[in-house]
Amino acid sequence: MSLTNNNHIILPEPTLRRLPWYLAYVETLLARGQEHISSTGISKALNVDSSQIAKDLSFLNLKGKTRIGYNVADLAGALSDFLGFHQIHKACIFGTGSLGKALIRDNGLANYGLHIVGAFDTNPDIIGSSVEDVPISDIKDISDIYDKFEPAVAIITVPAEAAQTVADTAIKTGFKAIWNFTPYRVRVPDDIVIANTSIYAHLALIYNRLKAD
Amino acid sequence: MSLTNNNHIILPEPTLRRLPWYLAYVETLLARGQEHISSTGISKALNVDSSQIAKDLSFLNLKGKTRIGYNVADLAGALSDFLGFHQIHKACIFGTGSLGKALIRDNGLANYGLHIVGAFDTNPDIIGSSVEDVPISDIKDISDIYDKFEPAVAIITVPAEAAQTVADTAIKTGFKAIWNFTPYRVRVPDDIVIANTSIYAHLALIYNRLKAD
Repeated sequence: MSLTNNNHIILPEPTLRRLPWYLAYVETLLARGQEHISSTGISKALNVDSSQIAKDLSFLNLKGKTRIGYNVADLAGALSDFLGFHQIHKACIFGTGSLGKALIRDNGLANYGLHIVGAFDTNPDIIGSSVEDVPISDIKDISDIYDKFEPAVAIITVPAEAAQTVADTAIKTGFKAIWNFTPYRVRVPDDIVIANTSIYAHLALIYNRLKAD
Repeated sequence: MSLTNNNHIILPEPTLRRLPWYLAYVETLLARGQEHISSTGISKALNVDSSQIAKDLSFLNLKGKTRIGYNVADLAGALSDFLGFHQIHKACIFGTGSLGKALIRDNGLANYGLHIVGAFDTNPDIIGSSVEDVPISDIKDISDIYDKFEPAVAIITVPAEAAQTVADTAIKTGFKAIWNFTPYRVRVPDDIVIANTSIYAHLALIYNRLKAD
């Protein structure tokens, strides 16, 4: 953990992976009407060490009560706030194939604070059309769309061989984060945020472990 | 690395993450018509240490030539084979919301050896219909579908609160691997393969790093 100039806490990646697990679990408790949960309770359900959970949750400005634990609704709200899911973050989709379209249609992303304001493609047959009110523009018009909405996140769902070029174009235009869904390992400058969600790469893991059985 | 009884190599997760990067890169070279590539060349393009690349590629039964490097087509084929992308692995989708449907429609998965043979949902309005020739069945009929195709991989794209129950049902039926796309941390027995592709969790990382700028 380190502090930046504006006192924002840079959390380690493992913590940022675990906090959404806690949130998803606490939200299921909330839906079931459970009122309180302890670190030990979360620990048992998720098989994460309870001292680790207590440490992770110490980043939140929230105190649990001895023996009762955390109020479930407060904990869900605090986690969601802390993770930035209650703020609006604007994004554009690059590549409107099946995955790009699915991400546009996915209400889940909006629930987690990601608002897709535009989409880009190179296929003249679909440029000018729209998916769920999100207009598909020619990538050549990227500056116009960027100036209008100032989106921060570029979601890359183009074919792998185009990933680097598209990421470079987005960064040059002003995008601050690249969310790469292709198997291609996109390189970005140090001041640009990069997250890789390489769906197919996970297949390699599954196949390798399956074969071992 | 360890060997199982049938001499299958269990690769470490970081290696299994990097090998698909090399494949995606080598496939772009193949598309451009490049004939040879060295570890150093891959290293420069992907910013991975070249000795690490040489070590990772040593798992393949393929020799590069001094000064010339690897034949690009051979390397692409060997990587794809080694990662299991040329074999057929059968899977079912659990939950046919926008993400489940997108995965069914995604040709990419089939190109990487994953054949979706069935889908399940609880919504009576869509049970009996199909997406791209994949029939959507009632989850109550899971045993019939399983006996017919013997799929190994259960892809979980239901809402988070249903993830554990659906995974438990799939495992009880005979599925050997759970590919979890929900933010819920699904628990599985030791002999079941689990891969988590938690799309929304990556948003937490992006938001945290963006705020730090």
